[in-house]
Amino acid sequence: MRDMISRLHPWRLACAVLVTSLTAASSGVLAQAPRPPAVRFTTDEAFDAGSIPAYKGQHEDVYRHIDANLADHVKQLQRWVRQPSVSAQNRGIKEMAELVAADLRQLGFTEVEIVTTTGHPGVFGYYDAGAPRTLVIYLMYDVQPEETGWTVPAFDGALVDHELGRVLMARGATNQKGPERAFLNALDSIVKTRGKLPVNLLVVAEGEEELGSPNYPQVIDRYEERLKKADGVFFPLSAQDRSGAVSLPLGVKGIVVFELEATGGTHGGPKNAEIHSSLKAIVDAPAWRLTQALSTLTSPDGNSILVPGYYDAIRQPTEAEQRLVNGMARQVAGREASMRQGLGVDRFIDDVSGRDLLARWLFTTTININGMWSGYTGEGMKTILPHVARARLDSRLVPNQTPDDQLALVRKHLLERGFADITVRRISGYPPAQTDVNTPIVRASISVFNKHGATPTVAPRLAGSAPYYIFTDRLGLPMVMGGLGHGSGAHAPNEYMVIEPRTGSRVAGLAAVEKFYVDFLYAFAEMK
Amino acid sequence: MRDMISRLHPWRLACAVLVTSLTAASSGVLAQAPRPPAVRFTTDEAFDAGSIPAYKGQHEDVYRHIDANLADHVKQLQRWVRQPSVSAQNRGIKEMAELVAADLRQLGFTEVEIVTTTGHPGVFGYYDAGAPRTLVIYLMYDVQPEETGWTVPAFDGALVDHELGRVLMARGATNQKGPERAFLNALDSIVKTRGKLPVNLLVVAEGEEELGSPNYPQVIDRYEERLKKADGVFFPLSAQDRSGAVSLPLGVKGIVVFELEATGGTHGGPKNAEIHSSLKAIVDAPAWRLTQALSTLTSPDGNSILVPGYYDAIRQPTEAEQRLVNGMARQVAGREASMRQGLGVDRFIDDVSGRDLLARWLFTTTININGMWSGYTGEGMKTILPHVARARLDSRLVPNQTPDDQLALVRKHLLERGFADITVRRISGYPPAQTDVNTPIVRASISVFNKHGATPTVAPRLAGSAPYYIFTDRLGLPMVMGGLGHGSGAHAPNEYMVIEPRTGSRVAGLAAVEKFYVDFLYAFAEMK
Repeated sequence: MRDMISRLHPWRLACAVLVTSLTAASSGVLAQAPRPPAVRFTTDEAFDAGSIPAYKGQHEDVYRHIDANLADHVKQLQRWVRQPSVSAQNRGIKEMAELVAADLRQLGFTEVEIVTTTGHPGVFGYYDAGAPRTLVIYLMYDVQPEETGWTVPAFDGALVDHELGRVLMARGATNQKGPERAFLNALDSIVKTRGKLPVNLLVVAEGEEELGSPNYPQVIDRYEERLKKADGVFFPLSAQDRSGAVSLPLGVKGIVVFELEATGGTHGGPKNAEIHSSLKAIVDAPAWRLTQALSTLTSPDGNSILVPGYYDAIRQPTEAEQRLVNGMARQVAGREASMRQGLGVDRFIDDVSGRDLLARWLFTTTININGMWSGYTGEGMKTILPHVARARLDSRLVPNQTPDDQLALVRKHLLERGFADITVRRISGYPPAQTDVNTPIVRASISVFNKHGATPTVAPRLAGSAPYYIFTDRLGLPMVMGGLGHGSGAHAPNEYMVIEPRTGSRVAGLAAVEKFYVDFLYAFAEMK
Repeated sequence: MRDMISRLHPWRLACAVLVTSLTAASSGVLAQAPRPPAVRFTTDEAFDAGSIPAYKGQHEDVYRHIDANLADHVKQLQRWVRQPSVSAQNRGIKEMAELVAADLRQLGFTEVEIVTTTGHPGVFGYYDAGAPRTLVIYLMYDVQPEETGWTVPAFDGALVDHELGRVLMARGATNQKGPERAFLNALDSIVKTRGKLPVNLLVVAEGEEELGSPNYPQVIDRYEERLKKADGVFFPLSAQDRSGAVSLPLGVKGIVVFELEATGGTHGGPKNAEIHSSLKAIVDAPAWRLTQALSTLTSPDGNSILVPGYYDAIRQPTEAEQRLVNGMARQVAGREASMRQGLGVDRFIDDVSGRDLLARWLFTTTININGMWSGYTGEGMKTILPHVARARLDSRLVPNQTPDDQLALVRKHLLERGFADITVRRISGYPPAQTDVNTPIVRASISVFNKHGATPTVAPRLAGSAPYYIFTDRLGLPMVMGGLGHGSGAHAPNEYMVIEPRTGSRVAGLAAVEKFYVDFLYAFAEMK
């Protein structure tokens, strides 16, 4: 469970947690300390994904092509994971970008370009189907470095017998090459049987997702006007958990990551190096200044943010969002104990539960200490007065907070409280992203899940973060991330994607995953 | 200078700082925040070490023996430093204890014993001179591990040309084998010329000083009744700085080192491992709890302790102590700027200066953060909610504070402020130690310094700490730590002791160091 929570791609977080947790009871305990503004519910109505009619289209010729070529489709996934593309090490990046570009050309994309950035290149591709609708496909072609603990070589593309069935076990198997190449397999089967796709596609792939997508905006820059005219964005991924349950989140929180640093200077304290701790009697201590500055940011329990105005930009959830939370609360009732056990916590803040727990998790902002350090941190003791102390923090942002505005509030607060000696350093940040449940692309995806007997739990957003504001806010497009299939171990050893599930499993095998993508493209093309 | 301050044996700290710093101006700036109780001066009279008559004894036969055997005496120092005795690595400890014991036997000590403890052994020795006075000699025979950066092998005992003259460069050269074996050389020359020493000696050596003397009380236990009947304690060391100036501190602060730890538990927060930082919205954070707990210990500037009662046990300085500070302020006037430069600080707390600076440094207690750490502390970012956060602190204690009482106040305060979830863990501690300037052993040492033209700056105490309460409080004996000579680099590469100073230097060479010890023993024996 630790891996499921802390190591995975943000979307996976919610998939893992939402469907294995939470209760419908909504008797939230009132806060004893000042708390974030309470989330107000104005409706108890619940969204029911099952009420959206199942997609009725049948594309038997395409399905048959997939079944007939499944062995080759598996080989396509293996070909992708066998090409290392470790962005953090610049290992195989160029080769993988060229491999993606070549595959797009082979599928009939008429415009394909390796897009130079100041970092690793992006890949752009346009498939002109002469169709009324155009879909943007977001892909990431980079992977995490392999770590120790693998039972098979990370870049061999091994097929392994697993408790869930036959799986592809390799770096990138689920994050993200497996689902992505499965999506391209689906395109291939459509083109081979129907001659062309039902929608136009604009592929915009990046090779720096695992680095936080620092240069992805440069890829978007180049095609912005064309991308803006599209009808939606799709990110192929395996949204089933190991039981087969599906979560469909319609947004992500934003984030701002920043560092506070205290050092010696004209305000006092040692500037160059630690000094003997006996000098504390006459010399200021950066470690105390950092501690004192940090402590002004929150209530004594650490759970309320005391930076003036920090909550002001937050909007209350819309009725549509409230209905999603009401629906989540009903679907996943009674599983808080197992969620606590999975996380290794004895209680949630204020013992909040049920709908209130979901609401606080998904709709409130945070300021959290990722790490802090100063002075001697080894075994035993070393009596020094350190010359520097640092803390790295992240704040999860909800609509309508922005990284710039929130960080400006922190800076202003620290100055007003007399902490001009504390350096505030922004590390990264982007705003939240949100898609409405009533957009055609969301309804199309739900209708296809329903056709496949996998009605999703629809969440208003993830509590995790990803820079999808690029699509939703900058391009103004609705976005769906999902698909059938299951994998795990994204940033951990023995990453896998299920290819052939064991008998009785509700997890989709590769053929079903690809058929979902086929249906989704046609459903999206056919939506009114 | 960094080495001079942060890496050296506590006594060295004051030797280095006291004589290169400070001004006589006493226009202290008043504190804007609550401050430790002001040190009250009821006299402006100054102690003048020069007013104590220089020791008049002449022991030419002994001096001649030293001069005639100096080459052999240097070899004795080399023999000691060539025997590694790294307590932290249990390397050569047994061999060095046996070497010390053998040397004592050779000098005519009639009782010599290797004293078993639960750690490294001590060495006890008794020299019966049939004299009225008995002196306890404290020795440490262990050394720090050697570090990188040595220009000669650390255990070769090399004689090296240095800007200060010919020096012995080796681990232990100054801390503490050089001065200690020089003291034994002096004993040897006395015995060889006069037949016996002028005082009885009780040697109590330890092999764990660099570990914080955890088992030294066990050595004392065994001989406590005999030790209590002695007339004083002497610790041979090189008290000159590189200019030749001498500092004679008459006490040390005590210390209590403790750790605060915040973890998840029934109060909330992750218990077993870090979790994804998006969960901060619903899960308590140990890092915030530690920060908040720490912040209650001090004022926002970190310079006043807000633990109720923490200052209550502090007594005001006696008039004798005040006179020492008044004398220090006059002797070392006008050197605050160079002290600040050496420490790398732009200002002292409250811009305090002169006598007030000395008073605050020597007479006030502190709580200082030695180190703190939580979560991810590497490059880049990792957005986690850490399950544990720790800070290690030290508090320097002045009379009449005790480690137990001060730590109890911290515990009580944290409980009263609602921090029952914070674990307070004592790491080590001992009370301060103080010797009166008017005791015979102190007056004897000053008279001998005066004879050698090296009138000391006498400090009421060091701001640093050492467990000398064992001698002053437990045994009830006055203690002097000092002697001529200069060395540096105690816990650093290229540690040295000057053997033959360059022409014109006021630093004593080995022969003069040994003659000081000869005079001191006779002066102590002859004191009324």
